[in-house]
This record gives sequence, structure tokens and C-alpha cells, in this order.
Amino acid sequence: MSERHLGKGSTNPPFAKGKLRLYSMRFCPYAERIHLVLDAKNIPHDVVNINLMQKPDWFLERNPLGKVPAIETEGGRCLYESLIVADYLDEQFPDRPLHSGDPAQKAQDRICMEMFSKVTQLVFKAIMDADNREQHCSELLPELDRFEKELSSRGTPFFAGSGGPGMLDYMLWPWFERVAAFGVLADQKLSLPNKEKHAKLVQWQALMEKDAAVKKWSLPPETHGRFLSGYKTGTVDYDILVR
Amino acid sequence: MSERHLGKGSTNPPFAKGKLRLYSMRFCPYAERIHLVLDAKNIPHDVVNINLMQKPDWFLERNPLGKVPAIETEGGRCLYESLIVADYLDEQFPDRPLHSGDPAQKAQDRICMEMFSKVTQLVFKAIMDADNREQHCSELLPELDRFEKELSSRGTPFFAGSGGPGMLDYMLWPWFERVAAFGVLADQKLSLPNKEKHAKLVQWQALMEKDAAVKKWSLPPETHGRFLSGYKTGTVDYDILVR
Repeated sequence: MSERHLGKGSTNPPFAKGKLRLYSMRFCPYAERIHLVLDAKNIPHDVVNINLMQKPDWFLERNPLGKVPAIETEGGRCLYESLIVADYLDEQFPDRPLHSGDPAQKAQDRICMEMFSKVTQLVFKAIMDADNREQHCSELLPELDRFEKELSSRGTPFFAGSGGPGMLDYMLWPWFERVAAFGVLADQKLSLPNKEKHAKLVQWQALMEKDAAVKKWSLPPETHGRFLSGYKTGTVDYDILVR
Repeated sequence: MSERHLGKGSTNPPFAKGKLRLYSMRFCPYAERIHLVLDAKNIPHDVVNINLMQKPDWFLERNPLGKVPAIETEGGRCLYESLIVADYLDEQFPDRPLHSGDPAQKAQDRICMEMFSKVTQLVFKAIMDADNREQHCSELLPELDRFEKELSSRGTPFFAGSGGPGMLDYMLWPWFERVAAFGVLADQKLSLPNKEKHAKLVQWQALMEKDAAVKKWSLPPETHGRFLSGYKTGTVDYDILVR
């Protein structure tokens, strides 16, 4: 719909009947969660990318906090917060459910997502605070240990079982994709997850990379590195893929 | 089951068949959320109160983060994080549903709960940091404005509608109960929510106070004040109600 990221002075493309609209930003890991859910469940939608440095007024009218990802429904309701939007999509479109049908297992998965917020914070710090990257990565290790243990105790290739990725798998994925960009940013190969310590997670990563939705949205570490390096120099370019 | 809060060296009371177990702390607002849900839905359960300063080993074995509220199921699974536990209970025990049956409305309510974390943080600061209580309360005002606006836009006495409290109502309530303790702590009458600015919230509070589950668990501001003042002097007494 819009590959280019729309900013101040732009016009919101007309709403298409029978489709949800996802407001996104191509490099945002939280937005990627929702791309994965929409594609894994084959939910009809279009995508409008937002320039987060110069948010359009029409976007702020719909979504006062100005956050992506946000979903606009045909009824004109705007929903945000990636985990809430993901759950909404799984309930509203019950075909190919991503959450477990067992409420206790679903709750356990949501506890894991909650615990994962430590990983997302540390990955962010490791990206932005290059001078202390090694320290942030060393703090990441015990957090990844926790997920290695969780996956190991489940005894299946995916967190959701053996049949393919489920909600927890998709919600974690975007940060594993970005960790590979550390090497590019730091000009050295930081190996996370660690082949020895996180054997199950490394296998999981290899399987996830073969998933159709993941394949469609994954970007190579060099591209993440190129985008993220803009933060350091204060020249973020949302449109590096469409120039 | 245990009114007294169990600490190091105690024994976990035997698990009763056909009941859930709630690990709680009598003055914890997050735990109160789950008491309200369990009672509103009439879910058979017993309660074991935990001394959070001296957590029993058997509790840490079940729940390594040592958090309350936690629910132990008959299958021996331990679930925590109040919002996740509340959702679990609403799914596992579908009688008298507390969430909206409309996924979009449910998502909207969960967004409100997410936004409410600013209120819970400010209430905590206002309680603990008495020297700057007025400042924290002044920061609370715009946050409460947001909920006044939300309730007003819904046009119903409860966030969930006209039929009584729903999930969002119960998840917000414990902090409104505690705000009344500010006056006791500060030795002055701080009026939040504000009668003029938050007319709908004040009406909502009066209605909530009549709800059976709320009535059962609410404590007068003097009791909250007495418990909370222990934090200031470093002499928290979990058992002031059973001595």
C-alpha cells in the first residue's frame, strides 16, 4: 500500500473494504510481530508505513500515542500494543489459531512473553549503546539461558510444539533476527544465541528461518545494521529499502 | 486457609481437591485483582498468604520469581502476573464472563489496563515518597482525566456497561481503594479522584463499593495507612489484621 513511510503533509490512503489496515514501520520489531501474525493467519490487510520522526496528523488523530504497530478495523477502531493486537487478531480470526487452546498453556506462554521484555530492552541497549555492547550482551546471556531451558523443557522444536510456529514463537522472533545485526554494527562476530549454551535455540532459529511468514519479513543483518547505524548518527532513514 | 502470612520454615498447607490455590498478600493491590475475579466468578479456591520479606522455600520452588498473586492449578502449574492470571481464570471458567465477548472491545479494555500502569506507578510513588506526595498526586491528575474521559465516552456507569463490574473495572479498582489512604498517610485530605474534574469516576467508585466482591476485600483507608506506614519505618507487618 505504502512502501514509503508517510510523514507530515501526507494523505492517508483510502481505506479498502474488507481489509484491516496495519500502520507499521518497516524496521520495527514490534510491528514485525503483527506482520507475522497477519501473514501466518492469512488475514486480508493492507500496510501503511509511518515516518515516526514526523508523524502525520491523520495518524495522531486515530492513534493519539502515535505508536506502531496499530491496527485500524473496518469499524474505525484503532488498536495498538503488539501483544494486545496479536491476541485480538487470534480471537477475531479463529482460523489457524496461534495461541494454545488450553488456557493454562496460553497463560504460560504469555508469562514467557512478559519475561522476554528483559531481552528486548537489552537488545535495544546493545544496539544503541555501542560503547557498552559487550556488557549488555553478557547480561543477555542468562536471559537467553532461561528461554533455552523453557524450549528444552517443552521437548519440541517450536515453543508451540512440532507443527510449526505458534504465538510465542512469532512474538520472540524479531529480536533473534536483529541480534544477528550486532556483528555488523560492532564490526565483529558476536554469536548470540550461543551455539554451545543455546543449542535448542540455535536449532529453533534455523527452523524459524524456513517459515513462510518469517521469510517474507526477515531482513539480512547488513540491512538492519544500515538502518540502525542511522540512530547513532542521528540520520534515521526509514526508506532505505525503497530508494 | 492461612490468614497469617507464611514465611521461612513454614509448611505449605495440603492442597485441597477440586480447588485452585491463590498465593496472596492481604494488602497487595495486584493480588486483590485476583481475589475480586475469583469471587465475582465464584471459582472454588483457597488462599495462602505469603510473607514477602521471608518467602518460604516451598513457595520459591513453585514460583521462582516469588511473586504474588500466583495461582496453583490442580495439575501443579503455577501461573503469575495479575493480568495474565485474570485472563486465564476468565477463559478457564467461562461462567459469568468478565471480559467483553467482542475481541475488539476486549483489546480496547486491555489497552486501558496497559495505560493504567502509569497510575499504579504514581500511586506507589505517592505512598512511598511522602516528601513529594503533592507532586506525584499532581501528575496523577492528567492520568485520571484520561480514565474520566474513557468512562464518559462509554456512557455507562461501569467500564463494562450497565450490568455490573467487568474485567477492566476490577483491574482498576484496588488503586482507587488505596488512593483514599493518602489522606491518612499525609495527615490531610487529598481528594482523588476529584469531585469536579472526575465526576464519572466518583460515581463509579460509589457503585463499585456496593459490589459484593469489592465489599468483601476492601479495607478502610486507616488500615491501608497503618500497613503502608510500616514501609516508611522499615517494619512491615503483614499480619496486622490477625493479631
